[in-house]
Amino acid sequence: MKALVFDGKLKLDLNYPMPKIKDNEVLIKTSMVGICNTDYEITKGYMGYKGVLGHEFVGVVSEVGANCDKNLIGKRVVGEINCACNDCEMCHKNLQRHCPNRSTLGIWQKDGCFSEYFTLPKENVLTISDNIDDITATFCEPLAAAYEILEQIHIKPDDKVAILGDGKLGLCISLIFKAMNVDYTHIGKHLDKLEISKNLGAKIKLVSELDEKDMKSFDVVVEATGSTGGFETSASLVKPRGILVLKSTIVAREGLNLASIVVDEITIQGSRCGQFKPVLRLLEDKRIDVSPLVSGIYDVDDFKEAFDKNSQKGTLKVLVKF
Amino acid sequence: MKALVFDGKLKLDLNYPMPKIKDNEVLIKTSMVGICNTDYEITKGYMGYKGVLGHEFVGVVSEVGANCDKNLIGKRVVGEINCACNDCEMCHKNLQRHCPNRSTLGIWQKDGCFSEYFTLPKENVLTISDNIDDITATFCEPLAAAYEILEQIHIKPDDKVAILGDGKLGLCISLIFKAMNVDYTHIGKHLDKLEISKNLGAKIKLVSELDEKDMKSFDVVVEATGSTGGFETSASLVKPRGILVLKSTIVAREGLNLASIVVDEITIQGSRCGQFKPVLRLLEDKRIDVSPLVSGIYDVDDFKEAFDKNSQKGTLKVLVKF
Repeated sequence: MKALVFDGKLKLDLNYPMPKIKDNEVLIKTSMVGICNTDYEITKGYMGYKGVLGHEFVGVVSEVGANCDKNLIGKRVVGEINCACNDCEMCHKNLQRHCPNRSTLGIWQKDGCFSEYFTLPKENVLTISDNIDDITATFCEPLAAAYEILEQIHIKPDDKVAILGDGKLGLCISLIFKAMNVDYTHIGKHLDKLEISKNLGAKIKLVSELDEKDMKSFDVVVEATGSTGGFETSASLVKPRGILVLKSTIVAREGLNLASIVVDEITIQGSRCGQFKPVLRLLEDKRIDVSPLVSGIYDVDDFKEAFDKNSQKGTLKVLVKF
Repeated sequence: MKALVFDGKLKLDLNYPMPKIKDNEVLIKTSMVGICNTDYEITKGYMGYKGVLGHEFVGVVSEVGANCDKNLIGKRVVGEINCACNDCEMCHKNLQRHCPNRSTLGIWQKDGCFSEYFTLPKENVLTISDNIDDITATFCEPLAAAYEILEQIHIKPDDKVAILGDGKLGLCISLIFKAMNVDYTHIGKHLDKLEISKNLGAKIKLVSELDEKDMKSFDVVVEATGSTGGFETSASLVKPRGILVLKSTIVAREGLNLASIVVDEITIQGSRCGQFKPVLRLLEDKRIDVSPLVSGIYDVDDFKEAFDKNSQKGTLKVLVKF
């Protein structure tokens, strides 16, 4: 089968072996895959991962293992990407995405979805309603990562909230915050991208327009720039006793000065993957329109063009059809 | 009056002018003062502060301003160190210690308590019971900073908790945690200091004894070492979705790698000064014995010896009598 493999170099393997399904797994025929910055990071050495890339997908179940419901066959599905042991403290707390024994689709010890077929444990798979189209469904994973913020912290109705960063991460958070009626300001450097939030009815502001009155004025600031400068700006915007949500491992690796965090008793909340269920409820209710975030849709045979497009400045989400 | 002044150099001024009290202030005759690491830091340039040092004290009210209760005169008192405007968002939330217009006793724009007399706003002053001796009362401020952790985060009865660092900060936290029935392990590098916690009935462990089973095993870890290595060890001890309490601005200034904080969705809680009231309740109930933490008591005329002792390795709290 066709599979986009990274083994030190990114290449389309036309004869990659079909995956074998275990008793508790389903085999999924891929319909569409999204390119994530993590994919790009992996091609630069992140996690030391080698194998099939990809973890954002929509597909159709084509075969199921012995312990799975046969009715799943033919169903359109999305799927959570962390494959857990289901037998540890984290799994018992329903925190499978923190299972220390987990593999992660296309990121850690498990071939990803950038291939014609791939497998996932049955408990990771969620069937989706026909009123969610393939493009929208492919956004489930990044939207769930955005929704994770609302699982972790309690944003109160009168909290003043900011998202810093107008890349696809910041925009996915903007889509979720709007759908969830958060009172937020989207702050970034690119007016064309901020316009997407403005069209949702959100307040927007350019970083260059930030002034003294904005400093220490937000109850919650979500850092979604992935840059050290962005972290520093976020820390300057949050009130004493406020919350700074840190979504990017990239900036976190660089080493950050936290003196103001201690003096102002700020809470830093590390945040990663989220659950799909609440996102699917929003998508079924048509409360999120992902279309302004789609920068291009490519055939898998044109993966080079797709990854080139993904790495161009100004690109938001690039999707790949199978 | 006598006052220990830092003006680029630390010196005992024998003719420092008596402070003038405002209508809402009380004048306090100093009985005893504790040396804090912040005092030492100020002599190295921290906060750019110049003036009378000191913010840990017990004293007796000798005079009161026009708007104060005259019955305070003659009362033994301790006092909170942040002097607030009482007219801003933070003050209205009862978070005077985060008032953006605050001055801070002996740290920021207000002469401290290392002098025969000093002033504080009446709302900062708390009278103390006669069953709290002067040595114990002088520990109110650092014990309140330790208690602050319990105001900020909810430590649940079955949470597994660690304190990392066995200096006076770590030991003050140990005293509070023991008094508040927290199930904790005190981890440090100095068996003689950890013995103080062991004598309280706490579990103790040397850093050199930490093993694979300790990694990612604590629900809450309090970083009280003030070193980058200590932060890294703390981050390695906390469970995914756990809480890392950061008490030290020193380590925070150095720039920290937070990648695991994002991946494991850890909460970092910056933590600084606390309220005195809950600490006074514990002290009145004789639930805290500070005596093992006292490394020396000096007369103010011997301030040089006191500060020398404070900077010696192994020293815990040094107190100065007036």
